[in-house]
Amino acid sequence: MSRSRFSLNAATTKYWPVDALLTGAAEAGIGGVGLWREETQAHGVEKTAALARDLGLPITTLCRGGFFQAADWFDENRRAIDEAHTLGAPILVLVSGGLPDGSRDVDAARQHVGDAIGELVPHARAAGVQLAIEPLHPMFASDRCVVSTLGQALDLARPYPAESVGVCIDTYHVWWDPEVWDQIARAGAEGRIATFQAADWITPLPEGVLLGRGLPGEGVIELRRFREAVDAAGYTGPVEVEVFHTAVWSRPGPQVLSEALHSYLTHVA
Amino acid sequence: MSRSRFSLNAATTKYWPVDALLTGAAEAGIGGVGLWREETQAHGVEKTAALARDLGLPITTLCRGGFFQAADWFDENRRAIDEAHTLGAPILVLVSGGLPDGSRDVDAARQHVGDAIGELVPHARAAGVQLAIEPLHPMFASDRCVVSTLGQALDLARPYPAESVGVCIDTYHVWWDPEVWDQIARAGAEGRIATFQAADWITPLPEGVLLGRGLPGEGVIELRRFREAVDAAGYTGPVEVEVFHTAVWSRPGPQVLSEALHSYLTHVA
Repeated sequence: MSRSRFSLNAATTKYWPVDALLTGAAEAGIGGVGLWREETQAHGVEKTAALARDLGLPITTLCRGGFFQAADWFDENRRAIDEAHTLGAPILVLVSGGLPDGSRDVDAARQHVGDAIGELVPHARAAGVQLAIEPLHPMFASDRCVVSTLGQALDLARPYPAESVGVCIDTYHVWWDPEVWDQIARAGAEGRIATFQAADWITPLPEGVLLGRGLPGEGVIELRRFREAVDAAGYTGPVEVEVFHTAVWSRPGPQVLSEALHSYLTHVA
Repeated sequence: MSRSRFSLNAATTKYWPVDALLTGAAEAGIGGVGLWREETQAHGVEKTAALARDLGLPITTLCRGGFFQAADWFDENRRAIDEAHTLGAPILVLVSGGLPDGSRDVDAARQHVGDAIGELVPHARAAGVQLAIEPLHPMFASDRCVVSTLGQALDLARPYPAESVGVCIDTYHVWWDPEVWDQIARAGAEGRIATFQAADWITPLPEGVLLGRGLPGEGVIELRRFREAVDAAGYTGPVEVEVFHTAVWSRPGPQVLSEALHSYLTHVA
């Protein structure tokens, strides 16, 4: 049963071709995969959707929309919603983007994120796709994501219906937050836990800090406590393991799938 | 007047010998210097204190106590308080330390920090030294400082008198926090703003992330807004510029003092 709750986010096996990933995931009997737009587009969105249907493999999330500081955010995010719909992915994860070039106005950037999400809600609702606002660790606040805490993500979601706007809770990004347990409970009470992702925190952080995520058990996060907290808050969806790490990427996809599943069963489930 | 509010934290000019730093600071007519324990001990604490007195140069802070996960934290922090007293530094900055080796229990580590500070209060009070809890950016939560937000620092300080336990507000560590403006106002209302430090946020972050702080104006932080916010909250003390960066360290001390003063006057004052 635990195995069927596990979903492999494709970022963990960055160089495993999409068709091989889907086939490997189906053979392993896991609950699904989370996909990324670039690799899915390269393989073909329709083709990927057809293969997933043939295999009976759920696409748990599509990563990612957002980056609202870009000039073409509106059209680009509508395309992302359409792709999620085509793939049968119920959730599009939104990483908000950082400050516009030359700007120091983080308040304005955050305000814009809220407004932009509002403009996407009708299209998301029509497509049957839930937008999941993902707070990223505050070390990404200037260049990748001005949404820095779960509480802030929930505040941004509040004006919109929960079936259209939820949150993505990723342990790597929120583990340090003294308020995270209260905010997980709040997210559940508000019906907004769209998805739950697990990765571990390891130091020292690498240059640029993006590729330092650890497999569950490699770091300091109380991962099982997080899984129990989202469960207690009413979340019943999949648990995605999502790791960006050059050493993990250097290993064969099937091996990483097996390692990620094992680390999930040992430290999260 | 602005120049007399400026204090140079010695970490900014790491390789400038303590006696030369003090003499250079006095000649530049700035308001003081913040010192670090290791370099001050190497020069001699009494000798440094005597030179500062002769020059009429205030020692604005001593950095740093804390690291409460260490076995000898009690004795070590009492020594740090004594050194601050000897130097005439009114404030000892506390960086709490990270998780104990092998631990994933950040709640317990945070609880221990609060308890440990309580055990130091009598000695600090007797020495006339205020302890300043410094929240560090959440990217340091596992290995350097489990105190991650200004609100959390204020919660930890709350059981103790404000004249003995305050907070250190460092722009680099708190700029991303959506609650920071409210918490600065709260810190002022509670009489706990012990010191204010300015450094800028630049990306990409270097490996290990410690040595990535920028001089004021080099990054994205609304530094003047922070200075105005602490002023509005009733803070009247010095503004320390504290930058750790290998490129800054590679330049001569007098040049960096001049650059730091200029960047402070341009972007903070």
